[in-house]
Amino acid sequence: MPAQNPSPEELDALVDTIAERVRERLARQTVPPLPVVRGTWYDETGLRALLREGGDRLGTNGDPAGPPPQDIAGLIDHTVLKPDTTRADIERVCKEALAYGFASVCINTTWLPLVVKMLAGSRVKPIAVVGFPLGAAVTEAKAAETREAIRLGAEEIDMVINIGALKSGDHDLVLRDIAAVVAAAQGRPVKVILETSMLTREEKIAGSALSKAAGAAFVKTSTGFGGGGATAEDIALMRAVVGPDMGIKASGGVRSMADAQAMVKAGATRLGASASVAIVSGGKAKGGY
Amino acid sequence: MPAQNPSPEELDALVDTIAERVRERLARQTVPPLPVVRGTWYDETGLRALLREGGDRLGTNGDPAGPPPQDIAGLIDHTVLKPDTTRADIERVCKEALAYGFASVCINTTWLPLVVKMLAGSRVKPIAVVGFPLGAAVTEAKAAETREAIRLGAEEIDMVINIGALKSGDHDLVLRDIAAVVAAAQGRPVKVILETSMLTREEKIAGSALSKAAGAAFVKTSTGFGGGGATAEDIALMRAVVGPDMGIKASGGVRSMADAQAMVKAGATRLGASASVAIVSGGKAKGGY
Repeated sequence: MPAQNPSPEELDALVDTIAERVRERLARQTVPPLPVVRGTWYDETGLRALLREGGDRLGTNGDPAGPPPQDIAGLIDHTVLKPDTTRADIERVCKEALAYGFASVCINTTWLPLVVKMLAGSRVKPIAVVGFPLGAAVTEAKAAETREAIRLGAEEIDMVINIGALKSGDHDLVLRDIAAVVAAAQGRPVKVILETSMLTREEKIAGSALSKAAGAAFVKTSTGFGGGGATAEDIALMRAVVGPDMGIKASGGVRSMADAQAMVKAGATRLGASASVAIVSGGKAKGGY
Repeated sequence: MPAQNPSPEELDALVDTIAERVRERLARQTVPPLPVVRGTWYDETGLRALLREGGDRLGTNGDPAGPPPQDIAGLIDHTVLKPDTTRADIERVCKEALAYGFASVCINTTWLPLVVKMLAGSRVKPIAVVGFPLGAAVTEAKAAETREAIRLGAEEIDMVINIGALKSGDHDLVLRDIAAVVAAAQGRPVKVILETSMLTREEKIAGSALSKAAGAAFVKTSTGFGGGGATAEDIALMRAVVGPDMGIKASGGVRSMADAQAMVKAGATRLGASASVAIVSGGKAKGGY
């Protein structure tokens, strides 16, 4: 496991190692297919199988041998990211998160002061997106946005990977970009959004491996703005690459309890959703992220 | 005309004044309808009418009584902003801009080093988007991204207005957000993208007035990611609000010479397009911005 803030020389070595490993894996076809987890996420068999598959969020939140979570609410980042979101929308989302016990409220950085204030004294975390949703801001801009978000009280950062650099094969830039945000987050967990719908299988593997190497806490599937969402196949592939010790967040198109369960079965340890209330109430929401 | 970097007290006074003027205009319904410009943009009658309507870019780029521009290429910001844009895409776009004499190449900040290098020694400007495309990054993040973009060689900045704050009636935040980017741009022109398709008529008026008050050089219609593009009606409304001394950029859905001409007739002095080559070659492009 690399240090949180590797030196330039360590980063260079990591890039070489990761690129080589991705090539090897692809050549040997050793990335396993979708893992089969028997039972549902909330029964004991399913939970034990899930933990074996690498459910670190479930595992580290309590005793792995203890009871399963009472409901899925505590895994959900309750999310509102549309540009025309108003102050009234943000206030409603915070109240819902407090009422249902969601893990967090996930918002654009302009809303952090309001959200931090509304969630103060609760267990619901304010979390913010960075370089969102294109991932194409220059690294120093992403790092500055992260520093400001942490200063304002964000407890986790969901950043978008540099998709264009990844697709151009510039693994060095991708790694440095993530490492800079991890450093700027000063120990707060960083999730790296891969935008899987835009990536080839090789790019998904490389993006996952680079995220882990750069010290990110989670890999995450989607922004919700990129024309595609989480799939069980992508979650399983990401789990196979990053191993059991890293969080995986399924986001984009998670709109019902069935969707949520399918993602957790495939290896997700966190869920991003705007339809969070419908999910935990047993409904099925329409529309976007 | 306010100073480029107004003091907090001046900003407070400006917000009050602008909000009052917006209310007055709406109450009196004095915003004129779409101005009628006879003739086409490139004949003398059309050009003179256009200059009377406030074509400052055409006016200040040369002698208003001199010959009209030979073609529309010099008004076009050749644009590529999709997140999966690769290095090869950027290189192609720069070569096209140099070959056709477009005004600029408009890109995400991650590509600035490459674009600045490719355009060096030419009249084609490297320009970059900030807070793009949601406009919901906190002000300090937008300012930091702007500072980094200028340091890397951007000659203009296209920022997105804080749409959520505008829709929440928080004119103070909207104004301070723009003013901070204008200050960070150190004299380089700043364009403010309103994302008109998400705004009411009152919000379009307020956004245009606040952009002018904050010292921006242009107002601009659309990101191309917000589900709508430029319309002649919106351009004319923006021109009516900001008066003759400010640039107006039409962007989103400008895909043919006819589209481009309609926007210039309505008052646009710059055009954002990804279909720039098709526009100047007389074609009609499909697809997005």
